[in-house]
Amino acid sequence: MSSIPRDQWYVAAYTAEIGRELFSRTICGDPILFWRTEAGEITAHADRCVHRRFPLSRAPSRLVGDTVVCGYHGFTYGADGRCVAVPGQTRVPRTARLAQYPVVEQDSLVWVWIGDPALADPGRIPRASYLDSPGWTTVRGMEPLAARYSLLVDNLLDLSHETYLHGGYIGTPEVAATPISTEVDDDAGIVYVSRHMADAECPPFYERSTGLSGRISRWQDIEYTPPCLYKLHSRIAPVGSVPDPDGSDPDAFHVEVVYAITPETEHSTHDFWLVARDFALDDEDVSAFLAEQNRTVVLQDVAALDVLEQVIATEPPGYQELSVNIDTGGLAARRMLARMAGAVPAERAVPAR
Amino acid sequence: MSSIPRDQWYVAAYTAEIGRELFSRTICGDPILFWRTEAGEITAHADRCVHRRFPLSRAPSRLVGDTVVCGYHGFTYGADGRCVAVPGQTRVPRTARLAQYPVVEQDSLVWVWIGDPALADPGRIPRASYLDSPGWTTVRGMEPLAARYSLLVDNLLDLSHETYLHGGYIGTPEVAATPISTEVDDDAGIVYVSRHMADAECPPFYERSTGLSGRISRWQDIEYTPPCLYKLHSRIAPVGSVPDPDGSDPDAFHVEVVYAITPETEHSTHDFWLVARDFALDDEDVSAFLAEQNRTVVLQDVAALDVLEQVIATEPPGYQELSVNIDTGGLAARRMLARMAGAVPAERAVPAR
Amino acid sequence: MSSIPRDQWYVAAYTAEIGRELFSRTICGDPILFWRTEAGEITAHADRCVHRRFPLSRAPSRLVGDTVVCGYHGFTYGADGRCVAVPGQTRVPRTARLAQYPVVEQDSLVWVWIGDPALADPGRIPRASYLDSPGWTTVRGMEPLAARYSLLVDNLLDLSHETYLHGGYIGTPEVAATPISTEVDDDAGIVYVSRHMADAECPPFYERSTGLSGRISRWQDIEYTPPCLYKLHSRIAPVGSVPDPDGSDPDAFHVEVVYAITPETEHSTHDFWLVARDFALDDEDVSAFLAEQNRTVVLQDVAALDVLEQVIATEPPGYQELSVNIDTGGLAARRMLARMAGAVPAERAVPAR
Repeated sequence: MSSIPRDQWYVAAYTAEIGRELFSRTICGDPILFWRTEAGEITAHADRCVHRRFPLSRAPSRLVGDTVVCGYHGFTYGADGRCVAVPGQTRVPRTARLAQYPVVEQDSLVWVWIGDPALADPGRIPRASYLDSPGWTTVRGMEPLAARYSLLVDNLLDLSHETYLHGGYIGTPEVAATPISTEVDDDAGIVYVSRHMADAECPPFYERSTGLSGRISRWQDIEYTPPCLYKLHSRIAPVGSVPDPDGSDPDAFHVEVVYAITPETEHSTHDFWLVARDFALDDEDVSAFLAEQNRTVVLQDVAALDVLEQVIATEPPGYQELSVNIDTGGLAARRMLARMAGAVPAERAVPAR
Repeated sequence: MSSIPRDQWYVAAYTAEIGRELFSRTICGDPILFWRTEAGEITAHADRCVHRRFPLSRAPSRLVGDTVVCGYHGFTYGADGRCVAVPGQTRVPRTARLAQYPVVEQDSLVWVWIGDPALADPGRIPRASYLDSPGWTTVRGMEPLAARYSLLVDNLLDLSHETYLHGGYIGTPEVAATPISTEVDDDAGIVYVSRHMADAECPPFYERSTGLSGRISRWQDIEYTPPCLYKLHSRIAPVGSVPDPDGSDPDAFHVEVVYAITPETEHSTHDFWLVARDFALDDEDVSAFLAEQNRTVVLQDVAALDVLEQVIATEPPGYQELSVNIDTGGLAARRMLARMAGAVPAERAVPAR
Repeated sequence: MSSIPRDQWYVAAYTAEIGRELFSRTICGDPILFWRTEAGEITAHADRCVHRRFPLSRAPSRLVGDTVVCGYHGFTYGADGRCVAVPGQTRVPRTARLAQYPVVEQDSLVWVWIGDPALADPGRIPRASYLDSPGWTTVRGMEPLAARYSLLVDNLLDLSHETYLHGGYIGTPEVAATPISTEVDDDAGIVYVSRHMADAECPPFYERSTGLSGRISRWQDIEYTPPCLYKLHSRIAPVGSVPDPDGSDPDAFHVEVVYAITPETEHSTHDFWLVARDFALDDEDVSAFLAEQNRTVVLQDVAALDVLEQVIATEPPGYQELSVNIDTGGLAARRMLARMAGAVPAERAVPAR
């Protein structure tokens, strides 16, 4: 059985990736065709001609106005997925239409619903409005990961690895040494993991971007909404500084690190990453620095997780991991994902009377 | 169960490919060794030493007179496949012989029988005598296809794809727009598909080779003898020209486009192609042009079909295609092939009384 | 069921390969981590962190004194495999320890025991003391083989292939032509295969290294101790020369060709090779010549066996080889290996009364 939850929203792309060119990306095993209509609406359909399976994203297939013409035999589809022309005859079979995916543009992200379209509720899409708001500047990228998405979930829910895998970038000894607190909100479907370091070394990532040096107060507050959206609320401030009772926090620097964890297949993942900040908004050097640094960090994760996927592929069945306190958040996330994927149906998770 | 019909003749090579060098090609999953005796006869045997499986086509194996010496331990075989020498002893086991394949040279093609040799009847091999006749000039090639042979059968039985996949080469709008007529001769085992365009654009392929320009009469008469031999009788003539009642056709240009569709494995195919013409017989520019153009067209098909094989490999089981009128010939061919492969035994296709 | 015998000693490396760097090699499917303590002892453990599987051999994992620090989350292990530190907490779970492999350094080889450590008896490791003795000079190498280990066993037990696969290096017509004698010592677990050529051509390998030319007496005495250690006692002497009754053999040149046949996985093998000689001990030209020649010969085997692995992968199930006299030793070795691998349990090989 698949470990990938369906009937869920996933990030498929950045909004800027979809325009008047045919664009394809495989999400949860489904190859999906994206393009924008002349009016600017994003469409999302199965990337496979109903006739003989040719991918509609592939040349010589092409976009003609608001229709897509298949490059193999010329089957032509409108923005609603309905076939409007077939070769050699005037009648178009009524059943000739592409499966359509619910799609939403929000917070600079393109979300698609994978599963039964009747269940799609855009109101359930988690928000990250700072990714597309005044007062914030964001850098971003996406790296292909040759590993199952759950390895990336494990990785991001346990930041103690920063000290070892990302030393010299974002890791310092305090990250691994400081205990975490974990909270699980099953109703909202969110896992929270917090680590507040009151007096810590400032890693290069924050030193050069904020201008702070020496010891700092560093807070990491993770808010993960399985399956796809991971947010790390990062607060960097001089030692001793705390937010004001009214919520304002003028001495601190805030960085929102966001990951969208989107399964491509059972064994590969789209690793979308974004870094938003509320300072140095127009400083292009800071933007370039944070983009380059975070991409390096993501590629360190990619290299490690690609190795883990290979390790799993060759290990004997029944291998058991050992978990410790730092894994509390990751294990909670795994339980939620297993329930979503149907491995532990939610209705049976409540004991019968 | 295999989808590849056995007890059938397949084209394994062009006659010019087989000489006094060891030559190997895998046909329907069987690696076969070919070479010519000193008298010029082609031999076809299993390409695998009976001792420890070493491929006899592979260096340092070598041809010595009319024997093949295995490059691993020196087992030596005659032209009839019998082992005539083994190392370390003088007695040669009687069972030491290579499986032999019936083989026929005809029409510049090397045909092998895949299946029970007792059933091989050279009289059943379909002919294409213009490939090796005075009055005709032929260009040819072979491209490896990383896709199952049935995808190439689909492709060739439905030429409406010329308009889209081969636009600028052999496709014009009329090919996709003109309805076809299909005829199936189950007794002879032939599928016919015809498309006669009375007034059509002349594509570059024919314009430059025939010298005709402007509008033309263009006939495409497909004659496919499953599983292997596909012939497209192509007639190009000025608009309004028809053959004389006696069969002569002096104003027309005739091009015989032949494909031999030979499965290499369940998922790969030898795509042999030949273009014979009855005009400009000695014009090497025309030969070079047709060879280059047809190879380009074949490589466009190869690129598309390789993609389809990948699509099939990752799609969920039970995926259903949608067929329309243009597919009539292809569907008839599929039925014949399925019957040949044993999926629908011929005797059960007739209802019992 | 695996064809690889467990509860056996295998050569994992040359002693010079293991030092103060983390070193990993997969033996019989198990990835194993090797390093030397500061006191010079070799350690051998599972190359996989107990926490989240990260390979301990892989950067940024590193050796710190006599501990290994995992590069992912910093789990730290001592030379006995016990975990001594985990991130985020002071308590270390008692079950946190790496599986340890019995390991022995002997005759310049690093042997590991694959299987139940309680059964490991270093006294059962076969010896080849000339590999690390005064009076002998040895050259060596290791080539990766993309083929199952049994194909290399077949290859080395039947040297008639030297004539064909290694002609111009170590093969001459007499090797294939001269019958062998085979002896199997089931109690000691050794297969002996001998071929004494009284009057043979001297191949380049021996001509240039010994200085002998013209006809020679050439003895090949194989002593194979399954599964791993293969020794070819090679004696080269002028025609007519025999050892003295007291065992001394002043007119002869002795070359000990040793192979360690170590399965990496079910379908790949570490092909360790060594050539020891009792002459020209300090002649670096002879060393360089023998190393280059033997490596070339091994690579000829590797190329052939890699092909055989591919042949097996695509052949229909139930394919039957044909064996002749030269295969007697190889077939005896196969029987021993099958018994060791549990295919023919030793206790059932004796008929019940």
